Amino acid sequence: MTQISEIAVIGLGAIGWGAALSLLEEGFIVYGVDKNSEKLERFAEQKGEACTTAAEAVKNVKIAAVYVVDDAQTEEVLFGETGALTTASEGTLFILSSTIPPSSATQFSERLIEAGMLVLDAPVSGGPALALRGELAVLVSGSTAALEIADPVFHAISSRVHHIGEEPGQASKIKMLNQMLTDIHVAATAEAMTLATEIGVDLGTMYKVINNSTGSSWAFDVRGEKLIRKDFKPRAPINNVTKDLGIAEREANKAGLNLPLTSAAYQLFTRASENGLGQEDGIAVAKLLTDSAETVDSEEPQSKESSWSLFSKNTSK
Amino acid sequence: MTQISEIAVIGLGAIGWGAALSLLEEGFIVYGVDKNSEKLERFAEQKGEACTTAAEAVKNVKIAAVYVVDDAQTEEVLFGETGALTTASEGTLFILSSTIPPSSATQFSERLIEAGMLVLDAPVSGGPALALRGELAVLVSGSTAALEIADPVFHAISSRVHHIGEEPGQASKIKMLNQMLTDIHVAATAEAMTLATEIGVDLGTMYKVINNSTGSSWAFDVRGEKLIRKDFKPRAPINNVTKDLGIAEREANKAGLNLPLTSAAYQLFTRASENGLGQEDGIAVAKLLTDSAETVDSEEPQSKESSWSLFSKNTSK
Repeated sequence: MTQISEIAVIGLGAIGWGAALSLLEEGFIVYGVDKNSEKLERFAEQKGEACTTAAEAVKNVKIAAVYVVDDAQTEEVLFGETGALTTASEGTLFILSSTIPPSSATQFSERLIEAGMLVLDAPVSGGPALALRGELAVLVSGSTAALEIADPVFHAISSRVHHIGEEPGQASKIKMLNQMLTDIHVAATAEAMTLATEIGVDLGTMYKVINNSTGSSWAFDVRGEKLIRKDFKPRAPINNVTKDLGIAEREANKAGLNLPLTSAAYQLFTRASENGLGQEDGIAVAKLLTDSAETVDSEEPQSKESSWSLFSKNTSK
Repeated sequence: MTQISEIAVIGLGAIGWGAALSLLEEGFIVYGVDKNSEKLERFAEQKGEACTTAAEAVKNVKIAAVYVVDDAQTEEVLFGETGALTTASEGTLFILSSTIPPSSATQFSERLIEAGMLVLDAPVSGGPALALRGELAVLVSGSTAALEIADPVFHAISSRVHHIGEEPGQASKIKMLNQMLTDIHVAATAEAMTLATEIGVDLGTMYKVINNSTGSSWAFDVRGEKLIRKDFKPRAPINNVTKDLGIAEREANKAGLNLPLTSAAYQLFTRASENGLGQEDGIAVAKLLTDSAETVDSEEPQSKESSWSLFSKNTSK
């Protein structure tokens, strides 16, 4: 078995940059692609091979990882005029790690397979910091053969790879469903703790009791604790939550489903984003809830201070 | 310390009946109160002391447990013409275990304390079967002195007593918040699994991955598993869920809060109840979601069969 030692990394954004540097550190020759020339210069300084098009990068390799931001960019870097498919040799393995709707992941995978390529559907969890440390969590679906080829790559970028089946698209779907539940639970935690504060419940006692009861969730445990500490540094910023829930909302609509909690959560986080909370952690929706009776029908942006004042009252008892 | 061996049990409904029998079994003399004469006859057959009014029962005892169904009944059995306060001697301990809003629990407690009584706010979890086995879970707030007096009573009716503070009302509040989170999570689980089924995700794989990820919750673990098995025997029937969420919704409104996920869950479970699912487990809202695109703006009751057909497809892969 020949060990793959050359790889194209398409998209050097938050996640792609960290993945590319982790791969360089592990001794890979990395062909990095980005539209941003400044970023390419910085990449060259790190001893990366800077490429302005996917076509240029992919002609050198048998494996390419894609970390662009949406469907349109994925379409362009794979199937566009200067896209990867114009130069990729047959059997090249594409690792699709962009945050795209599962239905898109499925379609892109099918088109790549039709074109004679190998594909892994490999959505990642974790932010830029984890990417730089090579500690992304990766959920993968695709053939076992493809997974074996990708093994040294995942070893470089990830501390946790979870293979969930042969069919590309499954990983993106389950990732979407996991995000949807996480985000609803975060909003529910914000609602419960906001109501608790208003009716004079000690949040510490509530936290302990509920964490050991039927109301418990990962979100309540981890993000509820952040809310009690008033720590809004993003574990996942509201702008990402909005993007994730938007994907779930559209996939549900496509399937002819009306999912009222998913919709309510999507609207709540969207409103939080519009009210200037986009860069804060998801649990910061609590700031919006305290003033919600007054602002629910209003378009005016809120004062963070006024909406925030509530949590000065009872959290530190 | 004199061990209390006589007790009044006011309300011999689903929970009160089980509690009263558990107390008889432990050797208590139990004065049982109910409006239903047939129930009183059955109680006498069990060697209970049957009383038609709270006044009659409470004059014999220093401790009384209340298991009636709502605010109005609680008002009546405590403060009404033939209520407990007409005969209760000073320092009688009242254990309030009816499912009432926390604000009511607080107010009733205050009025009892003003009247020279002792009070424990002691909402219970668990259905009739657990009540009969003496295995209710009880969350208690109230003075340590009152808790000590009540100790043999809780020992008889409960396998788990969790004391969370001196102030009556705290237990009811935290119980309400726990129910609110549980119910939202149950609805979220139903939404995620319904969407999963529609987009062709294997529920078993999804269950395993999410149970170990950020989307996990008690509800997803326990009720999601029921949904996969299509087991709708009520752990908590939708009619109870609707009652619990209604209390949370009204307490939020009283506090001037608009909690969109709580409202969405309340509406969803109410709709499920209206569509004939009231006696099924909360997770049965999934049956409603599959047809929700068509029925969301309609008042027509749904056919259970048609809404249910979805889950024949992918759950048993």
